[in-house]
Amino acid sequence: MKEFEVIRRYFTQQVVKRKDVHLGIGDDCALVTPGERQHIAVTTDTLVAGVHFPMETSARAIGHKSIAVNLSDLAAMGAEPSWISLAITLPEIDEHWIDEFCKGVFELCEFYNVQLIGGDTTQGPLSITVTAQGQIPFEKHISRSGAKAGDWLYVTGEIGGAALALQHIQGKVNVAPKYQEEIQQRLDFPKARVLAGQALREYATSAIDLSDGLVADLAHICEASNVGANIVLDNLPISAALADTVGIENAYDLALNGGDDYELLFSVSEDNKVGMETALANTGNKITCVGQLNGSDKITTTLNNMPVNICVQNYEHFSNQTTDK
Amino acid sequence: MKEFEVIRRYFTQQVVKRKDVHLGIGDDCALVTPGERQHIAVTTDTLVAGVHFPMETSARAIGHKSIAVNLSDLAAMGAEPSWISLAITLPEIDEHWIDEFCKGVFELCEFYNVQLIGGDTTQGPLSITVTAQGQIPFEKHISRSGAKAGDWLYVTGEIGGAALALQHIQGKVNVAPKYQEEIQQRLDFPKARVLAGQALREYATSAIDLSDGLVADLAHICEASNVGANIVLDNLPISAALADTVGIENAYDLALNGGDDYELLFSVSEDNKVGMETALANTGNKITCVGQLNGSDKITTTLNNMPVNICVQNYEHFSNQTTDK
Repeated sequence: MKEFEVIRRYFTQQVVKRKDVHLGIGDDCALVTPGERQHIAVTTDTLVAGVHFPMETSARAIGHKSIAVNLSDLAAMGAEPSWISLAITLPEIDEHWIDEFCKGVFELCEFYNVQLIGGDTTQGPLSITVTAQGQIPFEKHISRSGAKAGDWLYVTGEIGGAALALQHIQGKVNVAPKYQEEIQQRLDFPKARVLAGQALREYATSAIDLSDGLVADLAHICEASNVGANIVLDNLPISAALADTVGIENAYDLALNGGDDYELLFSVSEDNKVGMETALANTGNKITCVGQLNGSDKITTTLNNMPVNICVQNYEHFSNQTTDK
Repeated sequence: MKEFEVIRRYFTQQVVKRKDVHLGIGDDCALVTPGERQHIAVTTDTLVAGVHFPMETSARAIGHKSIAVNLSDLAAMGAEPSWISLAITLPEIDEHWIDEFCKGVFELCEFYNVQLIGGDTTQGPLSITVTAQGQIPFEKHISRSGAKAGDWLYVTGEIGGAALALQHIQGKVNVAPKYQEEIQQRLDFPKARVLAGQALREYATSAIDLSDGLVADLAHICEASNVGANIVLDNLPISAALADTVGIENAYDLALNGGDDYELLFSVSEDNKVGMETALANTGNKITCVGQLNGSDKITTTLNNMPVNICVQNYEHFSNQTTDK
């Protein structure tokens, strides 16, 4: 295990030095100093090789993704990301792999001024657990439980692309060469909508990040807020790559039920629509209104203003008794 | 993976409800509210099955240990433990196992009023990563770097017992039946010296918890504080079980180089000796003076006031460039 001491050196090479980190890597604990009147938002996500990413995923993509999925959870609360703890279990020593992995981690940390404050390096089957922490002024966080019937439902970016990439890797669909790099990027380098999340603090009544899929994650909001929802399929932000590859009906299915997009799904009251759209435009994030919340206990879908039963069954299977959502 | 939703329910059954947890399990992030003028201490440790505990370890012991090793890091900084995030990767669904694991986790959390605020449950080879957070008033933490030549060196409890238990499990030694339960407990249910750590805030010049072994962990203090040390072997707190089983010379070796004891090693100036001893007695922790720091760059050992070269070589191998210590 002595070699693991060497490997750990890679994790101390970060350029970000935050003023609120009183003591970083190198003691029994890190010490941080939260800002005044701030809540600390804490989230943890594990990525297991072969379960959360294909075994052949590049080290840089794994590094990027392990941070992005956690920043995405912070974004969904409206938090400003601050500190990361990284626990990595490695089957063997491969310094080139570690170097690439760290590039993926540090690129994203640098962009958002996030400091790696500690972690653990162990030997075993490849797995990464990141705990990310961010700060939110008191009473400014966005929960899942604040949505009201009548609120409008929005998503950032485009959806269904990560699921398409996975089907491509599994040999289930043929993606035209001109789209292949685009969809691989969608799966390997998801964008955490960090600035959008912070901009939404003033406007959104609820928010969640899309890790399980639009319907499944919308169900979490519906349960927590005690509302129903209708999704307007015609409006779903589907990429040309997705529609061209699988046809529009299958594209709806992947957009509704595919996971791993890490876009934000959020609700806004009628009164806040215009303000929110202006604020989000300033962050450079594309947003699309994909439906509306209502007083039912169902999630329904319409196409050309007609009901279609494409996803109703998913709702009841979900439970909000989870530790990580 | 639907069964994993069920399993997650176990993790929401905790009785501890802290006032400083604004939002617990059930959203994208937990939200906590640190006390005023407090640093947050953050530590992360991973336990991999077959690496950090024998495969046959009981679920309850694994649960206990995954929390204890992290509380031990908080104790070594003098922090008051507050919040835990728990990421567990499980090969299969075994509700009885999970139930026992949670008992081990929650028993310890309840004792120290620590709340589980989130985590992740994934499928794969058995592994547990805990991130523990605690609070310390500004400028009251104990680092590794404050020790001075002349300070006295102490440990809590007894040392070498966990290493003996491991040798027993591996069939390398024969432990008399009357000692077997005692040494198994030492390995499976380590005590985190949480109250001792907090009591030491006012007295210790440095502290570390003993996970790698007395000499290896003392080397971290020596490097960080730029001091040397002499260990008085005659004084080492060795249990009757250890001495009777392997003889006194081998007992010294296990006490110096065996890991996993999770006792605290700390240094105190001559002026603070009496105050510290009184304070620690009030916490109910046994402590032993095991040596003294000096101005050399070595760790030496003496027996009957004569130098013995039992451990000098270990010092230079260690590096303080680690992410988790």
